Amino acid sequence: MGKKKLRIGIFGLGTVGSGVVELLKRKEGKLGSASFSLEKVVVKNLTKKRDINLSPEILSINPEDILCNLSIDTVIEVIGGIYPARAFVLQALEKGKNVITANKALLATSGSEIFKKAAEKNCYLGVRASNIAAYRLIESLTNSPSRIEKLVGIFNGTCNYILTEMEKTGKPLPDLLKEAQSMGYAEADPADDINGKDTAHKLVVLLGLTLGCFFPLKSIHVEGIANVSSEDIVFAHELGYKIKLLAIARRKEDILEARVHPALVPQDRWLARLAGVENGLEIRDEIGLEIGMQAPGAGKYPTATAIIEDLICIAQGRKLFLSERIPSFNLKPMSEIETKYYLKVYAVDKAGVLAKIANVFGDHDISIESVIQKKIESKKDNLVPVIMLTHRSREDNIQKALRKIKDLPVIKKNPFLIRVEEGIF
Amino acid sequence: MGKKKLRIGIFGLGTVGSGVVELLKRKEGKLGSASFSLEKVVVKNLTKKRDINLSPEILSINPEDILCNLSIDTVIEVIGGIYPARAFVLQALEKGKNVITANKALLATSGSEIFKKAAEKNCYLGVRASNIAAYRLIESLTNSPSRIEKLVGIFNGTCNYILTEMEKTGKPLPDLLKEAQSMGYAEADPADDINGKDTAHKLVVLLGLTLGCFFPLKSIHVEGIANVSSEDIVFAHELGYKIKLLAIARRKEDILEARVHPALVPQDRWLARLAGVENGLEIRDEIGLEIGMQAPGAGKYPTATAIIEDLICIAQGRKLFLSERIPSFNLKPMSEIETKYYLKVYAVDKAGVLAKIANVFGDHDISIESVIQKKIESKKDNLVPVIMLTHRSREDNIQKALRKIKDLPVIKKNPFLIRVEEGIF
Repeated sequence: MGKKKLRIGIFGLGTVGSGVVELLKRKEGKLGSASFSLEKVVVKNLTKKRDINLSPEILSINPEDILCNLSIDTVIEVIGGIYPARAFVLQALEKGKNVITANKALLATSGSEIFKKAAEKNCYLGVRASNIAAYRLIESLTNSPSRIEKLVGIFNGTCNYILTEMEKTGKPLPDLLKEAQSMGYAEADPADDINGKDTAHKLVVLLGLTLGCFFPLKSIHVEGIANVSSEDIVFAHELGYKIKLLAIARRKEDILEARVHPALVPQDRWLARLAGVENGLEIRDEIGLEIGMQAPGAGKYPTATAIIEDLICIAQGRKLFLSERIPSFNLKPMSEIETKYYLKVYAVDKAGVLAKIANVFGDHDISIESVIQKKIESKKDNLVPVIMLTHRSREDNIQKALRKIKDLPVIKKNPFLIRVEEGIF
Repeated sequence: MGKKKLRIGIFGLGTVGSGVVELLKRKEGKLGSASFSLEKVVVKNLTKKRDINLSPEILSINPEDILCNLSIDTVIEVIGGIYPARAFVLQALEKGKNVITANKALLATSGSEIFKKAAEKNCYLGVRASNIAAYRLIESLTNSPSRIEKLVGIFNGTCNYILTEMEKTGKPLPDLLKEAQSMGYAEADPADDINGKDTAHKLVVLLGLTLGCFFPLKSIHVEGIANVSSEDIVFAHELGYKIKLLAIARRKEDILEARVHPALVPQDRWLARLAGVENGLEIRDEIGLEIGMQAPGAGKYPTATAIIEDLICIAQGRKLFLSERIPSFNLKPMSEIETKYYLKVYAVDKAGVLAKIANVFGDHDISIESVIQKKIESKKDNLVPVIMLTHRSREDNIQKALRKIKDLPVIKKNPFLIRVEEGIF
């Protein structure tokens, strides 16, 4: 056990940074058997009013005060975003400093390079805080000799909040996003919540830690919740499902399926019950272990606690975090995935519409499990939504069928598709 | 990353030992970036027929061949039981060897001493395999700055198998235990499965890792499943519950509640659905993280995989495993716990019995939520079972009331009590 003293520098004093400083103050200079001191906190704006009390000589706007300070051995990066976080993290590692980061966007885009640099410099790289839904599993996932078979997660609190409230209140997405922002849930740029990118970042990082290779974001299918409406939630409910924004990965030998999209999840499954900003993760591995983890998806303490845990690992004298692996995974093209599908089309309200659609499905080897077709009371445009739940089908067949259906004269508006995910538990 | 070579000695070549040897063979001398060699396997009987092929110079019956072999740096103990395992583990640590053990009985009774010795000698002590239900969480639980609030587990595959089969088939416990034994599920001494001791060992170890203090087994309430009958399972089912053997711990500030006993779990809770030999664990901590983990509770691969994961940690150059903590926990006396209770009494089948029982409960501040009283078709003794589910009550009140009820002239046989555990998920 190291009896050394950690000298800590922090980049960023936003929600998470303040949480870290607060928890460190409570620790009164001790992390297990090691001691520590907070040397510098580098911020963008010295004059900004803050909840947290720090002596003026600790605050600085000059990154060099951390990067070129030889006595600082441990750097916490909680500014978020790629620039300038990427440079700070790489320079800190280059100078032999341990680094802890909560920055999933950075890890998703530069994970390989950052882990390589940490290994080269024999530094600890702490990433527990990058995905709170996986927080307690991250270390075991990176070390385990038993490989992941399947992973399904809800990684974005804002989207889960919006989908939960949409179900409760029927309000449209823009209103609910504003609510989420006013409650401090959304990311700095909420576009990355809604379009699925934040979820995808977290999936790429988790797969990187688990498999040892960081897939480029553009290589995986990412779809957000912008087109999901309360109408879909009502229809999904009638079919026995809830709608969630999911990160999904499945491994079969060395073929990996990875995707982010809204999905219908059976109502009685564990993941379906996560409400509001809650995040969650289900994992099954090849020896049959199954884990479900649920975490508060917002607030400074969960993330700050994960950072403190990384500090404790450093205090215990650990070095690098990611196992060396020789990855050889091929991503399955989206066209080859197989699942059930929820399909919504708007059709002219006359007899024979369903038969026409069913014919197209038949031609593409798709069979239908259930149909909902409702009379709509007041419709200006004489259009009725027709909802179909298919049996398991291949994505390319579905896409081909949808193109055909779109061209049917009775169909108005583009068809809308949500995939179904049965979940692990 | 250490590039060193691990030289491994194994005590024991039973189910788990053979699994470890098999998995090591598949690794072909490499654990991540480190290499390893299997130097010695010490067994009780050299001539026993084994599934696994080992060259004769590796097998030995002499413990000194491992303990006094200076080139062996890593010892795996998978013989189980206290003697001679305790001596082997302590001597190996004394000689500066890393130790991996799956031995929950040993850790529960000598955990403090063993961890102290490992720290003193700066050796790695791997205990992942001691509780497969907690396997992927053990490291995080020992490091986490966020403390456990509640922990509920199913830690014994044999008992869960028996309770599951009792529900399905109505067979009595002794028959089902024989089945479990013939399928290789039961411990060497199945008494420790049935009486709850194996579950209690695992609870003591898990609390030891989490809180830093190993409570003596006799300080916690341990009750097995010997008195649970298929009749209870049927009644529990009518009330909306399943019966499971649970390990339960709750912390409130520095007061800890820890107990092992059969319990009624709501049917729709996650833990209730674990069937057959499955093990499981639910945890909630103070920042609101909730984890459910489910693991196969029998078979050599899960345990052997956990041991390999500890080897990988050693290969990465990690040292001690348990955090140094200053524990200051007081165990709550069993008499002070509060929960709901399932109570079964056998009464003479005549009017007014229920009123008499209800009076006693009223005197002891216990209120009743539901009652089941059935006519039994063919009863030789004119006795009917009366089942009551109470609202939350204090254990001492319940025990006092039971003593009074037992003395009522209309009551025959001792009353039987099962506590209710609502579960985390």
